[in-house]
Amino acid sequence: MNTRKRQAAMLRAGVVSAANVALPPNPACVAGPGQQCAHALVDRELNQRLYEYEQRVRERFTRILETLKVLSSMRHQSDFVAKAQQLASMQLGYALPDHLLEDAWIAGLDLRALHAYCTFQSFHACVENAESDQQALRERSLLDPDFIRGCGFHTVDISPCADGRLQGLVPFIFRMAPNSAVTVKAYAGALFDIESDIADWTHRELLRLSDGLAPGSAEGNYLKIAVYHFSTSNPGHQGCAAHGSNDHQATEAALDRLKELRSAIDNIYGFGAAPDCLLIGVDTDIDAIRVHLPDAQGHLNVHRFVDSSQLYRDTLNMDSATARQHIASTVDQTQHMDGWGRGEGEMVAGMREFVIHLLEANLSQIEYVIQHHEGRYQVIGHNERFICVGEAMTELQLRNKFYFAHLDTVEEGANDMDVGIRIFTGLNIQHGLGVPVLIHFHYSSRVPGARERAIQRCQRVKNALASRYAHLQNNHQLFCQMAISDVHGSERGCFVEDVESECTVH
Amino acid sequence: MNTRKRQAAMLRAGVVSAANVALPPNPACVAGPGQQCAHALVDRELNQRLYEYEQRVRERFTRILETLKVLSSMRHQSDFVAKAQQLASMQLGYALPDHLLEDAWIAGLDLRALHAYCTFQSFHACVENAESDQQALRERSLLDPDFIRGCGFHTVDISPCADGRLQGLVPFIFRMAPNSAVTVKAYAGALFDIESDIADWTHRELLRLSDGLAPGSAEGNYLKIAVYHFSTSNPGHQGCAAHGSNDHQATEAALDRLKELRSAIDNIYGFGAAPDCLLIGVDTDIDAIRVHLPDAQGHLNVHRFVDSSQLYRDTLNMDSATARQHIASTVDQTQHMDGWGRGEGEMVAGMREFVIHLLEANLSQIEYVIQHHEGRYQVIGHNERFICVGEAMTELQLRNKFYFAHLDTVEEGANDMDVGIRIFTGLNIQHGLGVPVLIHFHYSSRVPGARERAIQRCQRVKNALASRYAHLQNNHQLFCQMAISDVHGSERGCFVEDVESECTVH
Repeated sequence: MNTRKRQAAMLRAGVVSAANVALPPNPACVAGPGQQCAHALVDRELNQRLYEYEQRVRERFTRILETLKVLSSMRHQSDFVAKAQQLASMQLGYALPDHLLEDAWIAGLDLRALHAYCTFQSFHACVENAESDQQALRERSLLDPDFIRGCGFHTVDISPCADGRLQGLVPFIFRMAPNSAVTVKAYAGALFDIESDIADWTHRELLRLSDGLAPGSAEGNYLKIAVYHFSTSNPGHQGCAAHGSNDHQATEAALDRLKELRSAIDNIYGFGAAPDCLLIGVDTDIDAIRVHLPDAQGHLNVHRFVDSSQLYRDTLNMDSATARQHIASTVDQTQHMDGWGRGEGEMVAGMREFVIHLLEANLSQIEYVIQHHEGRYQVIGHNERFICVGEAMTELQLRNKFYFAHLDTVEEGANDMDVGIRIFTGLNIQHGLGVPVLIHFHYSSRVPGARERAIQRCQRVKNALASRYAHLQNNHQLFCQMAISDVHGSERGCFVEDVESECTVH
Repeated sequence: MNTRKRQAAMLRAGVVSAANVALPPNPACVAGPGQQCAHALVDRELNQRLYEYEQRVRERFTRILETLKVLSSMRHQSDFVAKAQQLASMQLGYALPDHLLEDAWIAGLDLRALHAYCTFQSFHACVENAESDQQALRERSLLDPDFIRGCGFHTVDISPCADGRLQGLVPFIFRMAPNSAVTVKAYAGALFDIESDIADWTHRELLRLSDGLAPGSAEGNYLKIAVYHFSTSNPGHQGCAAHGSNDHQATEAALDRLKELRSAIDNIYGFGAAPDCLLIGVDTDIDAIRVHLPDAQGHLNVHRFVDSSQLYRDTLNMDSATARQHIASTVDQTQHMDGWGRGEGEMVAGMREFVIHLLEANLSQIEYVIQHHEGRYQVIGHNERFICVGEAMTELQLRNKFYFAHLDTVEEGANDMDVGIRIFTGLNIQHGLGVPVLIHFHYSSRVPGARERAIQRCQRVKNALASRYAHLQNNHQLFCQMAISDVHGSERGCFVEDVESECTVH
């Protein structure tokens, strides 16, 4: 084990405290002798809470393979089922299905089925504990609902890439509180569906006009954010797979979608109707962001952006006030840049406020990665635990926990699913495991019949997956779990079994 | 040939004029000696124009099999290709693909491919000539856009069954002019998609609020009409296949959907937002309608309806004014009926006006069927020429010309497609022919990229059909033609070939 890894391991094991370890050089922070990477604008209390959240959630998944390994070695012991259940209950916090254990002494353990079962159960534990797990985050997130509304946005609709490395985007990288006005719809390559986005915008716009949004939203705008990503450590291989790890292509493609969305809505509902748009890039190695600045007309440009890792370095030794001043002036200088990045005039005041605070908030995440992940994630590539298709849940938001394809039908989302299956072929299938796929849709309990229709949609998607990936299905390598959530009530991530319409949680 | 058929044949051949033939007894009209079925409220000029339209369109399809039969018999003649092209051009008005003719002397004619090709070309001739074919109808339709707006409706969204016998619903049975405010979305059993309907309602509602609808629509409402159907001649077999020819079930199911739609929109956008709704039944043997009357709250009921064939009989010998008076009083008496049909209060004035005129307009269609189809269609069952999936075109609207499944994806519309394939198995496959499927979607040329996305959607649906009906695809029994239309411009029903994105019309 090299020094860096050992230090990290000691840190994780609690052998030494973070303050006693001289952190190794990293892209965002190169501290001189006696110096520390401790930025004046970083919220250390929030970082601590996020770290606890990360540890708690991560543990629910890392224990699965350890436990299964032990189970596998003891399957010939007498009284195996009882012992196995005892171990599972102690290590994982839930029981295993008896039928997967009873014949283990004859046929061996069905480790694929157990692995998928445990993955879904661990996911469910995250959902069940989300209220308490995330309470501390909600109270302290830097970009809270009031702030976002104050900047003039009633809705923030974020389309990152489906890549698992972006699934902690909202609470970690953007430092936004889980919030019903913030939605995440991920697509491979951030190539969001224009028609579906128009429908979402229309829905929120009509709610706004009929006073169905949060108070104070009547004058607000809809903000669409497209999020592309890249890897500074290994740009040719660990960037966006959907764009062949070509950063220029990833950036241009996301920008093109935003332009198409704006002109579609302007053309259908009249000039000026289009939502405000932001284009943001994430360096998934260190969670730093590039925020592209709109001009007075809302036009974006691939060259006109501010990079938060550069801001972190430039402002590291400043006091809060000076650092804030520097961020604001960097944003303003970038607004007036010449050459390829040139725009026409300054963005509106609310958008400027939003951008400046987003950049500042991200400094905390940069330092989070410095403190807890050695400045750069140890696994800079894929490491997802399952695939989620359908609609995202706010209850689980953590880097590399799942690959997320937002879709209504497999027919439309086939490309996003194919990318996910390709990733899991490397992660799981090559090691003998299967692919756990969580199919999740929302419904509104205020709408009669909506729950049954959400279940039907789950079932339809499940059938379509079994048909599209028949080779996996036939080889006992595809495991689907259906789940539904009420947007209003308390039923969240409730598991649905095939035939029944009653939710059953194991 | 029996008397009835001979008379009909003579009529069709123009050997005798309709006035000279004593029409046989039929459900809507039993004329005594010296009497005629000639109702004072029937628009004979419009009936004549519709009959000409029907003949013109029908001929484009009936000539296909006749022509192919001749072609088949002459395939060994020298100079076959030239002779075949001459015949096709004379009989059908278009050329055939040379490659389908050139090897006929060796391998025989590929009659399935030729039949599908001709069906699509004949469809295309309907689209190309729609402007002139339908001009006379547009000028004289009884329920024109001004009237509909005058009743307080800015949009009429009609969901009939996918059944081909209802595809002449708008211009024939309802006597409405082709009109951009009237949309038809057909589903097997009239079981329309609630979520998709909410999206359509939202779109129109937002257009209304942003003055994007026709002038005078700002105060209007959205009218949703669900249309079930039944067969009085053979109720157990020629009713709605999706409901096992069970009329009660067909009626209840359509009503349930309307209730679900209303409460969904009320619950999402606030009480009172829900669209106005009508439930209408069609007797597909004679094209008479049952209009179910909403009460003051807009509630519908399976028992509270007015039957147009009864109205026709009751008012046959009255003058116009008395007949109108009778229709109005029948509607009002029905509003106040007691027992199972009892409602709470009277419907609003605009709805009453609409219902009364719709019933009166349908009298013309009843007499149309008496005059031109012997009072009851000769083929009371299925006789469609092709399947249309995707979005309907106003350019072709005629009974039994096509089976129409409104869908975005085959994944969601699978049930509707399965019903269609089952019908065509009986109609075509059992006779050695294939199933021609037209895949059609709209786009807006004002929206950048929308045309390419419509083509992609066509291609996606085509692939999904080939995969779902692989047995037909592999047996050379499935023929798909993709087509797109601009909602604003002149590109209508333009054929798209597989790889190219340019439309090509043969």
